[in-house]
Amino acid sequence: MNVLVVGANGQIGTHLVEKLNETESYKPVAFVRKEEQVAKFEDKGIEARLGNLESSVTDIKKSMKDIDAIVFTAGSGGNTGTDKTMLIDLDGAVKVMEAAEDMNIKRFVMVSAFQADVRENWSEEMKPYFAAKHYADKFLMNSDLNYTIVRPGMLENKPAIGKVSLTRALTEATDPMTIPREDVAQLIVAVLENDHTYLQSFDVTTGDKEIEEALNEL
Amino acid sequence: MNVLVVGANGQIGTHLVEKLNETESYKPVAFVRKEEQVAKFEDKGIEARLGNLESSVTDIKKSMKDIDAIVFTAGSGGNTGTDKTMLIDLDGAVKVMEAAEDMNIKRFVMVSAFQADVRENWSEEMKPYFAAKHYADKFLMNSDLNYTIVRPGMLENKPAIGKVSLTRALTEATDPMTIPREDVAQLIVAVLENDHTYLQSFDVTTGDKEIEEALNEL
Repeated sequence: MNVLVVGANGQIGTHLVEKLNETESYKPVAFVRKEEQVAKFEDKGIEARLGNLESSVTDIKKSMKDIDAIVFTAGSGGNTGTDKTMLIDLDGAVKVMEAAEDMNIKRFVMVSAFQADVRENWSEEMKPYFAAKHYADKFLMNSDLNYTIVRPGMLENKPAIGKVSLTRALTEATDPMTIPREDVAQLIVAVLENDHTYLQSFDVTTGDKEIEEALNEL
Repeated sequence: MNVLVVGANGQIGTHLVEKLNETESYKPVAFVRKEEQVAKFEDKGIEARLGNLESSVTDIKKSMKDIDAIVFTAGSGGNTGTDKTMLIDLDGAVKVMEAAEDMNIKRFVMVSAFQADVRENWSEEMKPYFAAKHYADKFLMNSDLNYTIVRPGMLENKPAIGKVSLTRALTEATDPMTIPREDVAQLIVAVLENDHTYLQSFDVTTGDKEIEEALNEL
């Protein structure tokens, strides 16, 4: 199964590509913006394709040949303004969804943001970011794609813990509201073909369950 | 029929409230953000209600008592950044839609932007604005509301001409791509109960047809 990782050069993306590459079942294909990023992945024996989320749906589709599933973990990041948040995190994400639909690629895993579904819980200073994620998620839910929307808690660069808590409603949430990026990547690998996660969206933080166990309870 | 005009203090909104107020069939209710704007409308004998598009859906609903139709013509304007475009033009608009659905107000007229439906035609420097309008429109089309989406050409402050051209696909568009704001307001009055416009979206510019005639051809 060929998995296109959009945002492969990001922090979650880097973990995810490595973990997919270690499996028997999955072959990662890195979707990256710069030639030097293509070279970086190819040096590690990983296929990489050039693509730009600010280009057209037609152009984005050119990077989707022979792809079976897509993970969207791209983002404009904290160093650019809300212009880029609108054009990458929202419009870029939706263009990837439209391209996937056109290419008949059904499986789509979205890395969203903790509580992006609940306006009242958006932090004041990051409201535009949460709004962008919220509407990208909404668009995905209204699409014909077989989606899973993963909303991780505050991301940390600690090594994987391997235990998580999934919540579909805030009242069930467990402290601490953090999760290592490596655990998010591991969870995504486990999500890809787990049919309990099809058409589901959930928050995920570090918790007390094995990843498989938590996913199977969805 | 009580028509809530969201963005009543704006340039199209001001025309629209006046024109609605001149009719027998419609009573405008101005939805405005500031106390002094409420006073301004009340001085003219027009009902006005305080509301804030950055507040919650619950709060917005409080301004919707006894309302039969909503016209959304609010916008953060060109003097604020994309943060406000995201939170007013997109999220604010969607909150009004959600409030309308909750209040069982079915009729919703959206003032969108020329060609907001066609990414390739978004001007480079205003892309985030067009994206915000695009996704607000998309959300409206996916809602259960009885919408009409009006995408006016470049807005001018000239007096009304009274002749328009409506186009649902760019190839049919007519030069010049401008339209006086007063004509947009007049068109909205004519749209409100015209069932040819239900669940429709179109660009509108100055053209060669009477407004009623153009609408009836939809």
